[in-house]
Amino acid sequence: MSNAPRRAGRHFLQIPGPTPVPDRILRAMDMPVIDHRGPEFRALGLRVLAAIKTVFKTSEHVFIYPSSGTGAWEAALVNTLSPGDKVLMYETGHFASLWYKLALKLGLQPELITSDWRSGVDADAIETRLREDKAHTLKAVCVVHNETSTGATSRIDEVRKAIDAAKHPALFMVDTISSLASIDYRHDAWGVDVTIGGSQKGLMLPPGLSFNAVSQKALAAARAAKQPRSYFTWDEMLPANKEGFFPYTPATNLLYGLAEAIDMLHEEGLERVFARHDRHAAATRRAVKAWGLEILCNDPKYYSSSLTAVLLTPDQDADALRRVALEAFDISLGTGLSKLAKKVFRIGHLGDTNDLTMLGALAGVEMALALGKIPHTPGGVQVAMDYFAEVAKAGRA
Amino acid sequence: MSNAPRRAGRHFLQIPGPTPVPDRILRAMDMPVIDHRGPEFRALGLRVLAAIKTVFKTSEHVFIYPSSGTGAWEAALVNTLSPGDKVLMYETGHFASLWYKLALKLGLQPELITSDWRSGVDADAIETRLREDKAHTLKAVCVVHNETSTGATSRIDEVRKAIDAAKHPALFMVDTISSLASIDYRHDAWGVDVTIGGSQKGLMLPPGLSFNAVSQKALAAARAAKQPRSYFTWDEMLPANKEGFFPYTPATNLLYGLAEAIDMLHEEGLERVFARHDRHAAATRRAVKAWGLEILCNDPKYYSSSLTAVLLTPDQDADALRRVALEAFDISLGTGLSKLAKKVFRIGHLGDTNDLTMLGALAGVEMALALGKIPHTPGGVQVAMDYFAEVAKAGRA
Amino acid sequence: MSNAPRRAGRHFLQIPGPTPVPDRILRAMDMPVIDHRGPEFRALGLRVLAAIKTVFKTSEHVFIYPSSGTGAWEAALVNTLSPGDKVLMYETGHFASLWYKLALKLGLQPELITSDWRSGVDADAIETRLREDKAHTLKAVCVVHNETSTGATSRIDEVRKAIDAAKHPALFMVDTISSLASIDYRHDAWGVDVTIGGSQKGLMLPPGLSFNAVSQKALAAARAAKQPRSYFTWDEMLPANKEGFFPYTPATNLLYGLAEAIDMLHEEGLERVFARHDRHAAATRRAVKAWGLEILCNDPKYYSSSLTAVLLTPDQDADALRRVALEAFDISLGTGLSKLAKKVFRIGHLGDTNDLTMLGALAGVEMALALGKIPHTPGGVQVAMDYFAEVAKAGRA
Amino acid sequence: MSNAPRRAGRHFLQIPGPTPVPDRILRAMDMPVIDHRGPEFRALGLRVLAAIKTVFKTSEHVFIYPSSGTGAWEAALVNTLSPGDKVLMYETGHFASLWYKLALKLGLQPELITSDWRSGVDADAIETRLREDKAHTLKAVCVVHNETSTGATSRIDEVRKAIDAAKHPALFMVDTISSLASIDYRHDAWGVDVTIGGSQKGLMLPPGLSFNAVSQKALAAARAAKQPRSYFTWDEMLPANKEGFFPYTPATNLLYGLAEAIDMLHEEGLERVFARHDRHAAATRRAVKAWGLEILCNDPKYYSSSLTAVLLTPDQDADALRRVALEAFDISLGTGLSKLAKKVFRIGHLGDTNDLTMLGALAGVEMALALGKIPHTPGGVQVAMDYFAEVAKAGRA
Repeated sequence: MSNAPRRAGRHFLQIPGPTPVPDRILRAMDMPVIDHRGPEFRALGLRVLAAIKTVFKTSEHVFIYPSSGTGAWEAALVNTLSPGDKVLMYETGHFASLWYKLALKLGLQPELITSDWRSGVDADAIETRLREDKAHTLKAVCVVHNETSTGATSRIDEVRKAIDAAKHPALFMVDTISSLASIDYRHDAWGVDVTIGGSQKGLMLPPGLSFNAVSQKALAAARAAKQPRSYFTWDEMLPANKEGFFPYTPATNLLYGLAEAIDMLHEEGLERVFARHDRHAAATRRAVKAWGLEILCNDPKYYSSSLTAVLLTPDQDADALRRVALEAFDISLGTGLSKLAKKVFRIGHLGDTNDLTMLGALAGVEMALALGKIPHTPGGVQVAMDYFAEVAKAGRA
Repeated sequence: MSNAPRRAGRHFLQIPGPTPVPDRILRAMDMPVIDHRGPEFRALGLRVLAAIKTVFKTSEHVFIYPSSGTGAWEAALVNTLSPGDKVLMYETGHFASLWYKLALKLGLQPELITSDWRSGVDADAIETRLREDKAHTLKAVCVVHNETSTGATSRIDEVRKAIDAAKHPALFMVDTISSLASIDYRHDAWGVDVTIGGSQKGLMLPPGLSFNAVSQKALAAARAAKQPRSYFTWDEMLPANKEGFFPYTPATNLLYGLAEAIDMLHEEGLERVFARHDRHAAATRRAVKAWGLEILCNDPKYYSSSLTAVLLTPDQDADALRRVALEAFDISLGTGLSKLAKKVFRIGHLGDTNDLTMLGALAGVEMALALGKIPHTPGGVQVAMDYFAEVAKAGRA
Repeated sequence: MSNAPRRAGRHFLQIPGPTPVPDRILRAMDMPVIDHRGPEFRALGLRVLAAIKTVFKTSEHVFIYPSSGTGAWEAALVNTLSPGDKVLMYETGHFASLWYKLALKLGLQPELITSDWRSGVDADAIETRLREDKAHTLKAVCVVHNETSTGATSRIDEVRKAIDAAKHPALFMVDTISSLASIDYRHDAWGVDVTIGGSQKGLMLPPGLSFNAVSQKALAAARAAKQPRSYFTWDEMLPANKEGFFPYTPATNLLYGLAEAIDMLHEEGLERVFARHDRHAAATRRAVKAWGLEILCNDPKYYSSSLTAVLLTPDQDADALRRVALEAFDISLGTGLSKLAKKVFRIGHLGDTNDLTMLGALAGVEMALALGKIPHTPGGVQVAMDYFAEVAKAGRA
Repeated sequence: MSNAPRRAGRHFLQIPGPTPVPDRILRAMDMPVIDHRGPEFRALGLRVLAAIKTVFKTSEHVFIYPSSGTGAWEAALVNTLSPGDKVLMYETGHFASLWYKLALKLGLQPELITSDWRSGVDADAIETRLREDKAHTLKAVCVVHNETSTGATSRIDEVRKAIDAAKHPALFMVDTISSLASIDYRHDAWGVDVTIGGSQKGLMLPPGLSFNAVSQKALAAARAAKQPRSYFTWDEMLPANKEGFFPYTPATNLLYGLAEAIDMLHEEGLERVFARHDRHAAATRRAVKAWGLEILCNDPKYYSSSLTAVLLTPDQDADALRRVALEAFDISLGTGLSKLAKKVFRIGHLGDTNDLTMLGALAGVEMALALGKIPHTPGGVQVAMDYFAEVAKAGRA
């Protein structure tokens, strides 16, 4: 499409999602579409609807939508709430604030606990607010597990405990779009009522599928909820899903990919997948620190294993740096969003990647810092290598 | 997944959508995901947003959603209407009635002109109703161009004239899910305000994308519309689309496929595509008549070039016939929907197919009639062959 | 590449090979190349070298070459013979005569039993010739199992018996390029010393791999054989193959496909595969006879289940007919070769195909006969349909 | 196939071929096979036969074989020589010595100029030997352009001059298997008579195709050559190739890939492709030197841009190091061949790769050195990064 010479080799897609899709998944999707009302589809539908539960660590139902993750945010709210309902949301960053705006647009009354976008959810603040709400007017508590705009991972177990401590009946809704299948998440054990997920991050799929894992309490709430809804409504999904089918034409080829993706996660082992993400995150942070740069998330408790956001100084332009990296080394880094625009760049280390690819990516960042004239201490890649070698040595011992 | 022996050869997918996806399109989609905020995506976005207009025959904007066609139905209504608005809908069959139910769920007040599901829209009935509506309380007229459940194609130009004759300001919304890129459709020339489309039929793509082609009048209505909306809202799409981007993660790989699909339609030529569908439909009807069976659509004016529904007698079970066809000959036929259940089977002849494939499909039907003990006169395939040979002869003369 | 409008739908590849490659196999091949000296390749190599034996029905070694089938012909001769050696060959048709010419070029002294190209091998003629050869100067007997140019399948068991009856020690070499995995073949049970095979027919793979299944007697002959050889030599293959490796870079991606292909054959069941080919051949012959045309093979004992060659009258041009079929209906038929040029066209019915595809193909032939003005009685497709329906009925009873 | 957990991410294939196949090429090959005697194939055949000339920089014919590169070695010899002919060969390393053995097996009388496997061809030695051959009994001079076993690139222009200086009429044959499309090569300008190439290195294809680019002199020699030959014979190829066809079934899908590969080379620009290989080779050598290790090629004049072989000390085991690299970091490095076994490992930097992938690969080597307890100075990756950044800076200036 352009007159620029072809670039050789493989692009480094180091944004915090979509993530690189493994060949096996792309090839599984590269197959003829089948009749979505026939017996072969039925077997596929039952298979993926059962398998996806293992990823959310739930025994409850998981709804699968042909939509982006944004659709699953909407689905969670419209199925369980009624016009004018109050919900408590926590502003961990850009995506939490988008969810808040979505609630506003739907005619709900969201209330936002604000933050400086540099940390995770303060469970105490939630407990305090819920205790104040003696009348239980707050119908739901909504938090983002891993805030993709900042690289901070909240402690969902702590929020659960906060709600319980406040003895508050609000539904608990959690966005796991950039944590699912990358960072440990337990829908049942943590008592979550609606978990929102998407296909294009830890699940290693192209964008186009989203999820609602639910609880019995959420399903009960749905029966009373008055929010107008159709595309995202659970009630028509449930009976169709029981037979392996969907109430409208599903994104069949993405479901082929989903079946393959879940197989692959289990072939690696979910706990190994999480450990791998932890290792890549640790190596990235070591590199950032060696460069003398600042990690946006300022509390190690909340460091994200999916991505690391790096905060530049006010006189520096993170987008100029990203442009240099892309032009000179064919690597895509995540941009700073809304109030972080130009201030941060984000290194994605989630999805189907490995040590050498991460080192290539970190090398791309380090060289871009040099080319982009961002003052830094060279050697970030070296400390990441030293760390990987040490981990590998321990693993072989 | 099953213990049944592998079936050799290629399945005949003769449902009225999803349709067989050409290899070129599957392969175009079988490519690495790119950064949806980067320059390469920008070029892709601008390309498909421009190209899709040629398929709708419009110079206005076309919105592209990561959703099934059902989502685009919802999008048309929530962007242009307000709670309690009255809309006039026409019950051509199952899908028109689903759209009606969707409007109800959204809190609108749809009014349905009913029919016997065996014909197209009666434009006079619409004109009469609109003339009665002196107060212009009806905010929209909604019709389905090609009713996928019955195989009847309505005359959109006549409906437009009816609205004009009644001098009624209602918005005009048309579902082209199973006609777009199969049967001639002209968004601009026919003065449609919102056209709804989907990816998995004439566009030869897997399911997962849907469309809203709009008019300036529809965009103006959207600015005043009060229906709560977020995922499907146009207002955030428009500025992002101008730059080739989308407000949330798009279904990138389906967009690769869309670009390829539109190229392929133009390589064949849209008018040739329509003529091919007409030819396959004519051959199918000749075969059905030769078998002595009844075509559901009882007015030739409305015969569909996308599919033909065949009506059996009350003592016959169309689903049993479909099962025989699938088990014995590996061909999927469309089922009868809601009140047509077990009464009709549908032969899809839309999308990327050719004469020999159609003859194989008709042979599958004729042999299934024999196996399924449906009384019929053999020779349907022969008359279809004679017809194709005659057309080919004329084309070579 | 051309300015002709795109043709819609799937091409009908009805030549007697290469055959349509199933999507699963193409996708299995569409994977990154691996180190041909590493442990992953070792596992692949051992797997395919073991699996391919089941297709030849042998417990002996099968050599796999990165070459066309022609290469495997050469391999059979150069590994077992010495310059000037006499070999007895049987001219069943074009391909048998090509093999004869190949032997000449290699400096061997082949002797050819000629025929009219309308039948299979006459085992008695071979026995007679071998009995005459009291000095055992004939070092090998070479026959083609299924002659692709004529559609005649020889009886390999009878040839074996003839050699035994003559008490002749000649090596027995059989070309199964267009019969392997389509028509029953038994390397061990029939006492064959070298069986030649190729990838692009019954094995459903693209062209590019060929095979030599051998006997212990052939391996012993190879140790004494003086024919100069390098690329096709067995002696360096054997020790490498034991470890799963090859002496030079193998066609890795075709080996991925081979593994998948053999799995698929067994998922269907080899005996079912053969029965399917028999059924498609029977239907094709019924159609040809209904048209009033002549089958080239004039002895039903030798009818081929891989292809049917149709003999036109001297005033007719089979290539003109094939051109009409291709242009009007997008179907490729096999051309007449050497002395059969323009006199016959060949209908391939081997590889991954099914009843409806065969009927589409026969319909293409019948319509092309009409367009090409070849006098014939319509109704060939109908008798084929009747036959398939009858077989299906019996199978469901 | 194994019980080991799945490895995440993309394998680093850093052997000196086969090289990583770009997705575009794999997808181009992942297409239905077509009739190899039909008009569509004709267009493909003519296209690739013309395009491949640009890669060899020749206006003469290039033969394309369905075989590994070894086959093209054999083709060069059997087409131009007669039994007992003397040829002069130069032992640059393992592959040159394999070619020599092949000539022996074919019944030729090759004469080998030996070397220490640490450098390129000494053109003076060739000139001296040719001058001695007053009777012109040497019929050909055979050299390897880039010796894949050692990482030494010979100067073909100097060898040409040596032959000319000796006024010797011998044919000049050059193996470019691991240099073609990676290192500048000029068949016509350097007066080469037969150039041997393969698909799986600089051409970025899977293995399975090989090439003979020829001169008029070579074609003339072929007419007189008495070496028995069939599969590799040029004489039947030439007339078929003129029409875009091949005398036996070609490897159609690899030809699809070849067409795409050549397009891609020209989209990048051949000179840019060579410069990229030079850059990656330079970076690799800087890293090796920084580690304090020894490059096998001991004369910088002959450094290879396709691969770098690293020589360990006698007490070290290069294969153990390679095993550590593969197990710990999922990177394949080239093994030492024949007399270099366990003494060297080879880093491939040819084919479709880029700076970040090379840095990931070098990081894999550096970490494996640490794990494998090979004494070395850390920092090789850092000097490679510094070099790439410097080059990128200059390129942007």
